This record gives sequence, structure tokens and C-alpha cells, in this order.
Amino acid sequence: MIIHLKNNINEQDAHHLAESVQAFYFKDQEGKKVLVTSSSVKELPKEVEDKVNDFWVFPNDMQLASREYKKETRTVAIGDTRIGGDTGNTILIGGPCSVESEGQIRTSAELIKGMGLTTLRGGCYKPRTSPYSFQGLGLEGLMLLAKMREEYGLKVITEVRDATHVDEVIEHSDVIQVGAKAMYDQGILRACAKTQKPVLIKRGFGTTLQEFVQSAEFVLSGGNENVILCERGIRSFETKTRFTLDLCGVAYLQEHTNLPIILDPSHAMGFAYGVLPLAKACVAMGIDGLLIEAHPTPKLAKSDASQQLDHESFSHLIDELNPIAQAVGYKIV
Amino acid sequence: MIIHLKNNINEQDAHHLAESVQAFYFKDQEGKKVLVTSSSVKELPKEVEDKVNDFWVFPNDMQLASREYKKETRTVAIGDTRIGGDTGNTILIGGPCSVESEGQIRTSAELIKGMGLTTLRGGCYKPRTSPYSFQGLGLEGLMLLAKMREEYGLKVITEVRDATHVDEVIEHSDVIQVGAKAMYDQGILRACAKTQKPVLIKRGFGTTLQEFVQSAEFVLSGGNENVILCERGIRSFETKTRFTLDLCGVAYLQEHTNLPIILDPSHAMGFAYGVLPLAKACVAMGIDGLLIEAHPTPKLAKSDASQQLDHESFSHLIDELNPIAQAVGYKIV
Amino acid sequence: MIIHLKNNINEQDAHHLAESVQAFYFKDQEGKKVLVTSSSVKELPKEVEDKVNDFWVFPNDMQLASREYKKETRTVAIGDTRIGGDTGNTILIGGPCSVESEGQIRTSAELIKGMGLTTLRGGCYKPRTSPYSFQGLGLEGLMLLAKMREEYGLKVITEVRDATHVDEVIEHSDVIQVGAKAMYDQGILRACAKTQKPVLIKRGFGTTLQEFVQSAEFVLSGGNENVILCERGIRSFETKTRFTLDLCGVAYLQEHTNLPIILDPSHAMGFAYGVLPLAKACVAMGIDGLLIEAHPTPKLAKSDASQQLDHESFSHLIDELNPIAQAVGYKIV
Amino acid sequence: MIIHLKNNINEQDAHHLAESVQAFYFKDQEGKKVLVTSSSVKELPKEVEDKVNDFWVFPNDMQLASREYKKETRTVAIGDTRIGGDTGNTILIGGPCSVESEGQIRTSAELIKGMGLTTLRGGCYKPRTSPYSFQGLGLEGLMLLAKMREEYGLKVITEVRDATHVDEVIEHSDVIQVGAKAMYDQGILRACAKTQKPVLIKRGFGTTLQEFVQSAEFVLSGGNENVILCERGIRSFETKTRFTLDLCGVAYLQEHTNLPIILDPSHAMGFAYGVLPLAKACVAMGIDGLLIEAHPTPKLAKSDASQQLDHESFSHLIDELNPIAQAVGYKIV
Repeated sequence: MIIHLKNNINEQDAHHLAESVQAFYFKDQEGKKVLVTSSSVKELPKEVEDKVNDFWVFPNDMQLASREYKKETRTVAIGDTRIGGDTGNTILIGGPCSVESEGQIRTSAELIKGMGLTTLRGGCYKPRTSPYSFQGLGLEGLMLLAKMREEYGLKVITEVRDATHVDEVIEHSDVIQVGAKAMYDQGILRACAKTQKPVLIKRGFGTTLQEFVQSAEFVLSGGNENVILCERGIRSFETKTRFTLDLCGVAYLQEHTNLPIILDPSHAMGFAYGVLPLAKACVAMGIDGLLIEAHPTPKLAKSDASQQLDHESFSHLIDELNPIAQAVGYKIV
Repeated sequence: MIIHLKNNINEQDAHHLAESVQAFYFKDQEGKKVLVTSSSVKELPKEVEDKVNDFWVFPNDMQLASREYKKETRTVAIGDTRIGGDTGNTILIGGPCSVESEGQIRTSAELIKGMGLTTLRGGCYKPRTSPYSFQGLGLEGLMLLAKMREEYGLKVITEVRDATHVDEVIEHSDVIQVGAKAMYDQGILRACAKTQKPVLIKRGFGTTLQEFVQSAEFVLSGGNENVILCERGIRSFETKTRFTLDLCGVAYLQEHTNLPIILDPSHAMGFAYGVLPLAKACVAMGIDGLLIEAHPTPKLAKSDASQQLDHESFSHLIDELNPIAQAVGYKIV
Repeated sequence: MIIHLKNNINEQDAHHLAESVQAFYFKDQEGKKVLVTSSSVKELPKEVEDKVNDFWVFPNDMQLASREYKKETRTVAIGDTRIGGDTGNTILIGGPCSVESEGQIRTSAELIKGMGLTTLRGGCYKPRTSPYSFQGLGLEGLMLLAKMREEYGLKVITEVRDATHVDEVIEHSDVIQVGAKAMYDQGILRACAKTQKPVLIKRGFGTTLQEFVQSAEFVLSGGNENVILCERGIRSFETKTRFTLDLCGVAYLQEHTNLPIILDPSHAMGFAYGVLPLAKACVAMGIDGLLIEAHPTPKLAKSDASQQLDHESFSHLIDELNPIAQAVGYKIV
Repeated sequence: MIIHLKNNINEQDAHHLAESVQAFYFKDQEGKKVLVTSSSVKELPKEVEDKVNDFWVFPNDMQLASREYKKETRTVAIGDTRIGGDTGNTILIGGPCSVESEGQIRTSAELIKGMGLTTLRGGCYKPRTSPYSFQGLGLEGLMLLAKMREEYGLKVITEVRDATHVDEVIEHSDVIQVGAKAMYDQGILRACAKTQKPVLIKRGFGTTLQEFVQSAEFVLSGGNENVILCERGIRSFETKTRFTLDLCGVAYLQEHTNLPIILDPSHAMGFAYGVLPLAKACVAMGIDGLLIEAHPTPKLAKSDASQQLDHESFSHLIDELNPIAQAVGYKIV
């Protein structure tokens, strides 16, 4: 149950009420005082009965993220670029799988800047499945991203791998990416709930839509409303492609949740040849953004070599995608 | 291995050669004499060595359907409407899940005709998973479809459920649909190989892309080149949607095979609300057709009630989809 | 709903009643007159109200196969060997994937006979996924199996691939195997419903438990009560093994259905090394049988070479499995 | 590549060598000095050429865990109870899903003690998928487990949810459980690599066998050889059961890896009725342990109520399982 408390309830009382009814409490962006209990609570608790402006009952724990609570898609700002709401923006975020060197990430920054885009991606803490693979540059990579931000006026997004470095990532990136393998990690999610920076949560490849949205509820219920969902492919029996991009799931999320949705066709497909056709499909659904991997020389990439676009292919994306975006009332930004 | 025999080889000799090298033999649409062996044959058999115009070696049994053999997508004609090749056509096929009565299928035919479309779908032999569900009108349904064809000048597509009635379906429909549950059925596939009518093969929901294409090879190797692939969703762990539409798989098929591809978002999604956004995604990939279920009054449908569009929604599809089609160089027909 | 009609209802009236309430009608092995309607029928239809001995209401279409209807596992006889019920028998059925030649199948028959077993398997109509693979000997293979039956006094089980040859298989085999790719095939299922020979239905690799049991309902509702379920592995994301043997599913079937269950660890695993450990696991669950592939020289097998046991390994199975069977109150027969 | 350095190489040189060939270095339980590089290294690096006793080349990053490196299953001690190697022990670990109160966990401890078992499980940091569910008692729960250890002389195993409390769990538990949702978490894995306590890694429900074993490599390559693998069900399309226990995968792991294997039928099945039959199946495969949930009053459990055995059912497990264990040369301890 979500409860909007009356405006005249003071902070201390609000916290007491939250405790007595086992609820999360936060003040939302509009200044409303919000309690959130388990969805198993179907009737207003006696303690709050006369202190309530409004309340909502839910069939399951998709509460703050649901369209029953907020009908319109939430707006999230990545620097000056806003997505969601009625912005009609489909943000195109690009960059390499991993930050590998200053030269490499600078070339990427120049590509993004040169195309008139605003946001650069690059992994520093790589959640590799083998200890014997390249694990990312860590803090050194973060510093290189920060340098690119300063020099090129870009925003940066990078992934947090586990809770040991979540504070560093929150401090140094503009959007915190919670990766597919980390999206159940409460150490990460609860840390992200305490900042107001945008958090992009990737769906785990074995994660149901319900669990995916509940992962966002960990952040939302802590008071950070700037959550973006990212579908990046689930694991099915098919192995000719790396994963299976779940656009049925995207249709479900668009219908039932109020969070902006960014899609990652690169990881879903696993092969560069499929990234453009899938990106087109995604854009045609009226989505809020795309996350696409590009590398100056994909063959030499230290991770995910086969799925990264070269910079020439990436530079054509806007021209390829904008006509489709316009056909559905969006524009690539 | 695919072998093109020299033109001066006569039919009888061609058949003898086929037998001696354990190959399929047929004359293709251009009059070429074609032998197809297992892909495990990597070197020209001695018997044919001096009788060959050209030959192709393959890493697996995707042979006649592969772009290594034919670079361009094959053209298939459904009545006067051609898809594939350089036609730039995305055919929109609509109609109810099941033919239920003359009144119902007539309303559907009028919808299709009124929109300027050419092809009507409707199931007569329903591959239901329970013996206690509505099983379709069978031959009576086929006759109703045939009546609509005559009265409205439409082409009709209907599904064959098993080999006991494959001849009836081949006789009375313009496109033979081999359903997701029947696409391994050699009784059906071999019968389809002997006609020249277009055959639309739906991917089984547990079927790999490789097996899917090999299913087409059963028809192609028998001499019927008019094969269309249809992706309609695979079974994943996600249950909020009926199936998972595999557009990564479509990107794979577009890259590696030469067969036209029609997509069925209705069965994939299982809910009417998701059909339009998914149809948009499909069209943006530059596909050859869409198969979408529509029913005059979905709530009363005898099968798949939740996923069928009502006729008003269906009638807006062309306007919704054409701008996207045009953005990728296609048009809805 | 299942309805037992009063004994004094004559056949003609029973058929009329069945028609008027849209039910299947058959006389069961105990002579009871049984009507089965859709499970959506929750109240006794007026037409039969005063003609009923007993009736059962169900939440879904698992009706004749459910333990709510028959609490005890049904008994099925394969020749003189009975499984299910209180027999405590776990039948071990062996033989090659495909019947390849008289010499090969004779060696197999001698192996089975020599071990004191009773039933020989061997595929004649192979449901291969490629037209370019070995497709089985067809009727010639059936005749070889029939010969082994006569010469060695064995029972034989073989697979029907599609409806074009279902009558041949029903005629010439002792147990009709409906394979994983054919188990939705109503042409086959309805033909099997008209015989009284045992029918072993394999679960499709993309088939839910509910659909699997409903497949059995096609046969049961036609009056053939001799149905055996066979779990043989489902398709999951894991590819180190050929399929994933679903023993959770077996636990479900044992709890909820009244049909004997035979397991096929060979196809599930896909590799000979795993067949014995999996067979042990299966036997420990108290199952009704095992279907295991064995070939005189697996490396030369024309199909499924990697998963077939050699005859020496197969010959040790009884000694390996019997102690486990005994520990759970069963014996290998 | 795994390299055994000569005994006369001193520690400092060993570390230098490790750095120069980008390898992990540790001294194993037998005192051997071990370097491990990526499996992409196929030839001995020049730097170590004359300093090597022995070395192994691998096709992929399953190296320390592979039977090519160590043929015998490793032995791991949980207190005085040893599993793996030639011990023939199948350890039965029981206890509630969550530690809920001192009374509840004491009842559980008495059950375990009373049955002559040695190890108690209980979750303190629950990796729930919703923020609105019971999240576990945290450190308070850990202290209760520690109390039970002292009072009853039991060993305890509990799960680490994320890296924020991994040190607490390592300090206070006897076996560190890395749960299915945390098994890619390098913050956890690298912390576990630095202790010598046994680490039980559960396979993620969307995790391949290869990734599963590589997760163990994170711990092994850091010098902790006491790693146990735990299969607990993967996510398939089947939803009648909670997950799908992958015993084909267990057969694979037994064939290819040298790590002890413990199975968790409770989470796989999700329903108490299936736990015993599945436990029997597991034991018949000759496994090293079982992890089974039991609760004094399952209906009142704060998590996973449907799958926990009541104490009466649990108390019969040894009698039910021991005959099967003995049939395969094991005993339940």
C-alpha cells in the first residue's frame, strides 16, 4: 500500500508512523510525504487512518513503479537531457564495453560529442564470469571517464559490479548502472536509494519482469525516484544469438510501469550485424533510450569484441534511427 | 552440398545421379537442375564430377535456405501480391484465430477487403492442447474460407494441424500454414514439398533457429521454393506474456537465410494491448509480412480471446505502421 | 467434468447424452460408462441429472489422468509385464536409437533377451530435424522388429513420426511411442485412442506439464486407458548437456496424475557418461520404467551416436539399478 | 594454464613471476606453489620455463576445478565431518529458510542434534526480490546461530547476500553460503578467497554450468580450496514447480569437476511434497550432501513457507535416504 500523508504531519511523526506500520517513508519530488508498506496490506492501518490524504492498494509489490500509482511515465534528467514524461526523447548512449586506455576512451568521447550526443558509456568494474579475463581498470577507469566529462562536457554512465565500490561509482558517474548480474544486490540498490542520481537497472538474464520491477522498488522506496529500466536480453534455449531481447516484456513494462525504459540491443544480440536492425525495432516501440556499444577497433576490444559497432557504423545510427523515431513521435537525442 | 547439374543432363540421368549420391533432385524455378546432399559431403562425388555447372559446400544443413547459396531474399507470390526480393512489401494478413461461423468470417473478410488488404487468415483445424476445447470447424471452415475467397476476391491462409487433412488444406487454401506444433511433421512437410503453393512455416516455441530453417529445407529440397518463415514467439521463463518474440532470431534469419519472414506478434504477446507496439517493432526491421489476429468481438472468441484485436483497432494498423515501413523503405500492402 | 452414468443406460442413449452435453463417451476397463466434458463444466448438466452414478469436477483439463479421479496409479500391461498400480515393477526397455539392419537389431534383441528383459526399442521412422540425415528404415524396420518379436519372444516399442504411418505402427508394435516432436499431433493421438495397445507419450522438449498431461487426455478420452507418460528432458538455456531432465516435473506428475511414468535419461543427457547416474536418480524416485538407448557399436550409429550405451555398459544396468530399486520397494524387470 | 613452480622458488620470486605472467599465485594445501593464468595461455611463458615442476593446459577457464588438474574429488571438512574424496559421506544439512527467533532456531538445532546430524542452516540476510518482504534478522540472526553452535556443538551455514556484510558472515559462520543471486558477486567471491573456511556456491537460476564453475575459480584462484558446488534448480519455462533441478548438470559436474557437490531439492521444487522424492534421486547419484529446509511450523514461516518440511517429515529423512545411499556406496551423515 502507498499512503500520502497529510501535509501537516511533521517529519518526526512521519518517521514514527512509518515504523509503527512497517513502512518505508520518504518525501517525493513534489514534496509529498509517502509511506509504502507491503502490498499484503489491503486496508488502511488504524494508526494512520486520520492522517491520510490518499492511498493506493496493489495486487503485488509493483507499487511505486506502477501506472496505477502514477499514470504518466516519470521524467528522469541525465544532465540537461530529459527522458520520459512527455519529452518525446529517445536518448542514444554510446561508448565502449570497457574503458581500456585514455586514448581509446578519448576517441569514444570525440565520437559521441561529434554526433551531438550527450552521454558516454564505458565499463570500469567488469562483472566478468571468469577470474582470468580482463576485469576492467577500476578506479583508474572512473577517473578517465571523469576527465572526459570535464574535457568534452559529456555525462558518463558506468556499471557498479558489487557493493565494495558502489560509493565510488555513485560519486564519479552521472548515471549509475546496476548490471544484469548485480540487480538483486541490496548492498548496491540500497546505496543507490540514498543518492538522487539516476540509476539505470538492467534486467538480469534470468530475471522475471516482476522481479525486475521489484528491484526498482528497492531504489524508489528509499526515496530516489530517478530510476530507469533497461532490458538487455534474457537467456533462452537459443544460442545462435547471445541472448534473446524480450520486446514482449518491454510492451508489458510500457503498459504497467511508470519508469523510463532504455534498451541495450548490443548485449542481447552479441553480434554487431544485428545491432542496427534491433535498434530500429526498439525505437519503433517509442522507448526512452538506447545503450549501444561502440569501439574504435572492435577486434582489439578487451571484452565483448564481437558485438561492438565500429565508429563508422555508430556514426550513422542517428540518420538510420531518426526517421523511425519521428514516425512514432520521438526524436533521437 | 548443393550441385547445379549441366543443362544437357536429361531428367532420367539426373534422377539416377541423385540416387547414386543420396541426394534430393529437383528442377528449380529458373529451370536449373539441382541436387542436394547432406552437408557432411564436402567434396564433389566422383559420379557427378564432370556433370556439374556449379556447387556449394556448407558447414551445416542450412543449405537451400542460406544466403551463401542465394544472396537475395527469395520472392514469393501470394496471389498478385509479391513479397521478398526487392519488392519492398510488408504484407499485412489479418483475420480471426478460428473460423467460427459464416457471419463471423464474412465480417472479417469485409474488414480485410475494406482496408485494401488481400489476404485473410482463419483457423479450421485448431491444434488445441486439450481435447476438451473447441477444435475448429474442420472442412466446413475450409469451405467457408473458400467462399470468402470467391465472394471477396481474397486469398486465404489456414493451418494444417496434422497429416490426416494436409491434402484438403493444400487443395483449398492459397497459403498453407504449418503451425508451431506441427513444424517437425514430415507427413505435412513432405506433402507441402509436392505443391507449388506458398508454405508458411511457424517456428515451434521450443525450436532452435537451426531446426527451424531445416524444417524449411524439407520443403525446399522437395522442389517447392515458395517457403516463408514465421517467428511467433518462443517459450522462455517469463510468464507475464504468453511467449517471447525472438527478434534477435529474426536478425539472425535476415542475415543468414534467403527466405521471406513474416512475424506474428499476436501469439507472441498473448494480449491485445501489446500487439501494436510489437507490430511496430517488427515492421521497423524491414520484414516481409505480419500475421495479426482480429475478431469482430474478441471477448466471444472460441480461442485466443485475449490476444485478438477488435476490428476498430485492426483498421488503424495501416495508418500506424505505414510511416515506420516507409522509414525503412517498405510499404504495408 | 467426468460423469459415471448409471449402469442401466444403454449404449445408444449414452451416445446421445454425450452428444447433447458435448462430451466424450467410452466404456472403461471396468465396464463403467464414462462421459467427459470440458473442465469448464462445473455443474451437472440437466440432461444427465437423473442418470448419474457419480461425477467429478476439475479445476482444469487434467481430468481422466488426475489422482482426484483415480487415486491409484493405473496398471498397464506390456505383454506379460505389468507396470503401475501395486506391481512395484520398474521396466527396463533397451535397444538402439534406430533399427539399422537385421544384424544390428538381432544383436540388440539378444542383449535384451540375455539379460532377462522383455521389451526391445528401436526407431524406424526417425523424426530427424534435417531432411539430409538418416530418416530410418520405415516399414522395413518395423518388419525387422516384428521378426525379433517372433524369434525372441520380445515385445517391441517403436515411434510414430507422423499420422501418415500411424496405422502401420499400431499394427506392428506392442507399445506405440508418440515422440517428443509429435505429442501434439491429433492425427496420431486420436488414432492411438482407438486401439487398446499401450501408448507411451514423450513430453515435448518445449511442453509444459499441463500440456503433456492433456496430450494423454486425447488418448484417454477416446477410450484407451493404457497410457504411459515419458519424461525425456526439456530444453533449457544449458547446452553442456543435450536437454535438462525434469525430475521436479516427475515429482509433480507422481503427485497429481494416475499414469505410469517411464523416464528416458539417454535423450535428456545426450552423452553416454551421464546415463547411468541419471538412471540411478530416476529409479530412486520409484518410477515405472526406464527407456535407455544401447547400440552394439555406438560410434557407428546412424543417429544419436554420443548418447547410446555400448552393450557391455547396458548389461550391467540391472546390477547397478536393482539395489536402488529395492531400497524404494521396486524391482527392475 | 596451471603451473606448479619448483619448490626452491621463494615466495617473493613467486609473486614476481605471477605478476610478470599475469597469473594468480597461491600455495596450496600440500604446500605446492601454484600459478594460474588465463586458459588462453597455451605455451609456457619464457619467464617461468626453467622454474616449473609441472603444468596443465586447458580448453577453457575451468582449470583448478577440473578433473584434468585433479582427478579425485577434493575433500572439504565441515567441522569434523569430511565430504568428497573417498569419504563416502553424504552430509544432510537442515534448518529453516530464515532464522526468525531464538525459539524457532533452537527447535531446529534440537532437531538436527537429535537426529545425530552436525550442521544447521538458517538465513539471516535474505536476498528477497521485494523490499517489502521480510529481509532477515541480519547480525542478530548470525548471533543466534553462533549461540546454537556453542550450546549444541553444531556447525552453522548461512548465506551472504551482498558484499556489505560478507566479513560478518565469514567471521560468524562455519560454511559461507554464496546464494544463487550473489554468485557472480566478486566482492563476495574475492573475500571468500581470502579465508580458509568452506564456501558453498549455489548455481544461479540463470547460470550456465561453465559460469558456475568459473565462479568457483574466483575462490580457488585466491587460494581457498574449500569450495563446494550446490545445484538448486534453474529457471525453465515450466512453472508448476518453482525451478527445475538440473541433474543432467550434476552428471556433467561429477564427470568434469573435482569439487564436492551438494544439492538443494527444496528450492528447486518449491513444494514440500516433492522434496523427499527428489532427495532420493539426488542421493542415488552419489552426491556429497543435501541442503533441505525444515521449519517447526511451515505455514507460519516468514519466507518460503510452501517448500519447508515440517520437523516430523525431516526426522524420517535419514531412514528414507540411507538405504539408497548405501546402495551406491555412501552413507548419510
